[in-house]
Amino acid sequence: MANDYRPMWESLGLDLEAHDQLLQVIPPAFGEVYMQQKNRPAEMEYFDFVISEIHGLRIQELQEHKARGGKVVGAFCIFVPEEIVRAAGGICVGLCSGAEIGTAQAEKVLPRNICPLIKSFMGFKLGHVCPYFESCDMVVGETTCDGKKKAFEILNDYVPVHMMETPQMKREKDKALWRSEVRDFVTEMEQFTGNNVTYESLKRAIQDVNGKRKVLARLAELRKNIPAPISGKDSLLIEQIAMYDDVDRFTGQTAKLCDELEERVRTGAGVHEPGALRIIVSGTPMAVPNWKVPHIIESSGAVIVAEELCTGLRYFENTVAEDGHDLEQQVDALAKRYLDIDCACFTPNAARTDKLVQLAEEYKADGIIHCSLAFCDPYLVEANRVEKVLKEHNIPLLRIETDYGQEDSGQLKTRIEAFFEMLAAKKA
Amino acid sequence: MANDYRPMWESLGLDLEAHDQLLQVIPPAFGEVYMQQKNRPAEMEYFDFVISEIHGLRIQELQEHKARGGKVVGAFCIFVPEEIVRAAGGICVGLCSGAEIGTAQAEKVLPRNICPLIKSFMGFKLGHVCPYFESCDMVVGETTCDGKKKAFEILNDYVPVHMMETPQMKREKDKALWRSEVRDFVTEMEQFTGNNVTYESLKRAIQDVNGKRKVLARLAELRKNIPAPISGKDSLLIEQIAMYDDVDRFTGQTAKLCDELEERVRTGAGVHEPGALRIIVSGTPMAVPNWKVPHIIESSGAVIVAEELCTGLRYFENTVAEDGHDLEQQVDALAKRYLDIDCACFTPNAARTDKLVQLAEEYKADGIIHCSLAFCDPYLVEANRVEKVLKEHNIPLLRIETDYGQEDSGQLKTRIEAFFEMLAAKKA
Repeated sequence: MANDYRPMWESLGLDLEAHDQLLQVIPPAFGEVYMQQKNRPAEMEYFDFVISEIHGLRIQELQEHKARGGKVVGAFCIFVPEEIVRAAGGICVGLCSGAEIGTAQAEKVLPRNICPLIKSFMGFKLGHVCPYFESCDMVVGETTCDGKKKAFEILNDYVPVHMMETPQMKREKDKALWRSEVRDFVTEMEQFTGNNVTYESLKRAIQDVNGKRKVLARLAELRKNIPAPISGKDSLLIEQIAMYDDVDRFTGQTAKLCDELEERVRTGAGVHEPGALRIIVSGTPMAVPNWKVPHIIESSGAVIVAEELCTGLRYFENTVAEDGHDLEQQVDALAKRYLDIDCACFTPNAARTDKLVQLAEEYKADGIIHCSLAFCDPYLVEANRVEKVLKEHNIPLLRIETDYGQEDSGQLKTRIEAFFEMLAAKKA
Repeated sequence: MANDYRPMWESLGLDLEAHDQLLQVIPPAFGEVYMQQKNRPAEMEYFDFVISEIHGLRIQELQEHKARGGKVVGAFCIFVPEEIVRAAGGICVGLCSGAEIGTAQAEKVLPRNICPLIKSFMGFKLGHVCPYFESCDMVVGETTCDGKKKAFEILNDYVPVHMMETPQMKREKDKALWRSEVRDFVTEMEQFTGNNVTYESLKRAIQDVNGKRKVLARLAELRKNIPAPISGKDSLLIEQIAMYDDVDRFTGQTAKLCDELEERVRTGAGVHEPGALRIIVSGTPMAVPNWKVPHIIESSGAVIVAEELCTGLRYFENTVAEDGHDLEQQVDALAKRYLDIDCACFTPNAARTDKLVQLAEEYKADGIIHCSLAFCDPYLVEANRVEKVLKEHNIPLLRIETDYGQEDSGQLKTRIEAFFEMLAAKKA
C-alpha cells in the first residue's frame, strides 16, 4: 500500500500482528491468481489498484465519511437494500469473509461444523483483523439461512445488528412481509443516521445503485461473445469489489473497462485459447480472497463466462423500477427487486433452475460447475434440484463442495479436469 | 409381534428384507435400554406393548382408517397442528426418523453432511422401510430449518408435501403470517380429505389434543418430586409414543400411569438411588429409537427429570385456548399456541433460555445437558446463548453434539461421567 495506514488501523482497534499476517497472505495469492493471467484488459489496472489498497484507501474514505458524521453499515447478504443506506446518507459495505482467519476464536462461539463464511465473519470480528468490519457502526443481518440467522445473535454482542426477515417462500403474503421489512428498514436507517430518507434522496440512491447494476450487466453481456473478452477471475474480482467500493467511481471504471472489452469483441480478441471450454459457475458466494475454484477452472483450459452467484448475476441481474411517484412506491419497487433474487433459501426455487438452463443457452456454456460452501444446506440440498433439471436439458454438471482451505485443491483439480475431458469429448 | 403382519407390509410396498433388518434392531435395543431398568412403574406395560407392536397394531389401525376412506397425514415437526387434521377426519402421525437406515439411498439425493434426522427420513422413504411413512397420504412440511425446508422439495417427488411457512421471528407481522398459514391449512385439509372442518369438529379435536397435552403435563409435574417416580427414559418413550398413538387411548393409559406415579410419590418410592443427580436434557428431538444419550445418562447414576425437547416439554407445555366462539377464533387460538413453541429456529429466542433457568429451579436439577443432532445450525449455534445465560445463573451445562451412530458412545459416556463427577463434587 502506498501510505502508512498503521495509525489508522491502530485507531480502529485492529490486532496489528494478526492483521499483518492477513495482509501477507492476500497479495501473494492475488499475484499468483491474477497477475499471471495473459491478455488481461488494460483497464483491470484500477481493480488491481483497489486490491493493492485493500485495507488502505477505501478504509480511509470510510473514516473520512465517519468523521463528517456519516454512518457505515455492513452487510453479509445481497438482500440488504444498499439504496436505503445511501438515501439516509450512509455507506453500505459488503463484508467479505472469504478467508480462514480467527478460526480458533470463532470456534469458541460457533460449532466447528458450520459454513466457512459464517466462521470467517465471526473470526474476522473476534480477531479484530478487518478494518471494514471495525468501521461498521451497524451490521444488517437477514434470515436467509439458519447459520447466519443464529450467528447474528452472537455477533450482536460485539456490534449492533439490525435483522431483516427474508421470507421462506414467494407468495403474496411473503411479498407483503418482505415489503414491510424494507419499509421498516427505511425507518431504522432514518433513526440510526439521524437523516430523513426522502423521495429525492431515495430516487438518487436507486439511480446510483441501478447504475452499478447496469454496468455489471453490460460486462456480463460482453462475456456472451466467443471468444470471451475477459476472464472469469477478473469478472469475479470486479463483482467482489462492487460490494464495497465507492459506487460512482466503481461504475465509471467498470464502464471504461466495458469500452475496452467492446473493442476487443470488435477485433475478436479473447483471453483464452480459441475453442476453450465455456463454464458457468453456480452456487454460494465467493468472497475476497476466495478465488480457489475459479483459479483451478481457468488454469485447466476453460473460461468462466458467468457466475450464477451472490457475487455475480444474483447481485445485479435485476434493477429497481425508477418510476415510483412517492416513497411508498419506491419501497414497493425495492421490495420487489430484492425478492426477485433466486436464492436457495426460498422453497420452492424453480426460478433458479430455469435460469440456469437459460444462462447455459445464452452464454453458450459447455457445462455448469455447482460450487457450494461446506455445510450450506440451502445450496447443497438444492443441488439435487439443479442436477435434476440440468439432466432433463442435457446440460453437463459437476457438483463441488468446498471450504476456504487449500487441502482439497489437488482433488478438485483432478475432478474438474476429468469433467473438462468429458466436455471436450462431447464437443468433439 | 402377535400377528403375521407381512401381508399388510407387503401391500404397503415395504422392502420386506430391509424392514426385517430394521425390526431385528429395535427389539434388542429396546430390551437393553428399557427392560433392564429397575423399579419400573407397572403401567409402563402398555407402552412396552406399543413398542412390541411398533409396526403392527397401529399400522393396522391406520389401514382400517384408510379403508373407511380416512386420510393419514405425516409430520416431522411439532408445528404441524394435529387438531386440524383430526377435525377434518384425518389421523396425524409424527414420523420418527430416529435410526440410521437407507443412508446410501439418502445420500444419493442429500449431502453427506446433513442432520441425521433429515438423512433418516429420506432413507426411510427411499428405502421403503417405514409402514407409517408408507401409510401417509400426505406429509406436512414446514420451514423451521434449512435442511428440512429444502429436503421437502425432494420428498415431494415421492409423496405429496404441503408446506407451512413457520416465520423466523415472533413479532406481530410474524404472528399474522403464521395465523394465515394455519388458516390455509384448514382449507388444505378440507380439500384433501373432502370433509369440512366445522366449529364442532375442531372444538372436539382441540379438546382431545389438549387432553393429551394435559396428561403429559401431569406426568411432567410428577417428575418434579424427589425421588423422581419414573425414569427419564420411560418418560421419553411416552413422549415419543404420543406422536403416533391413538389420542384417546394414549391419554387414558398415560392417566393410569400418572395415578400409579402419584401413589409412588405418596409413598416416596423412586426409580433411582436416593440422592441421584437430577438432569434436564435440552436440544433437538430424540425420535424412536434414538435413546442413546438418555441411556448413557441414566446408566451413569443420574435421573433425567425433564426433556426441553420437541419430544418433550415443547410438545405439550402449552394448550390451545378452548373458548373460541367460532372457527376463526379457534384458528387464532391454534396459531397462538403453536407460535409459542420456543424452537431455536426463531431469532431471537430468549424465551427458551429463560425457560431453561426456570425449569432448572422447578425441577430441582443439578445440571443441564444440551444435546444437539450433528449439523443442526439452529440448536448448535443457539447453544452459545444457552451457555451464556446458564453461566449467568450458575447452572452447570454440558454440551453434546451427536448423531444416530454408536461410535461416539464411549466418548459420550466419559464426558457425561466427568460432568456428573463435577456436579456431585459441587453438591457435596
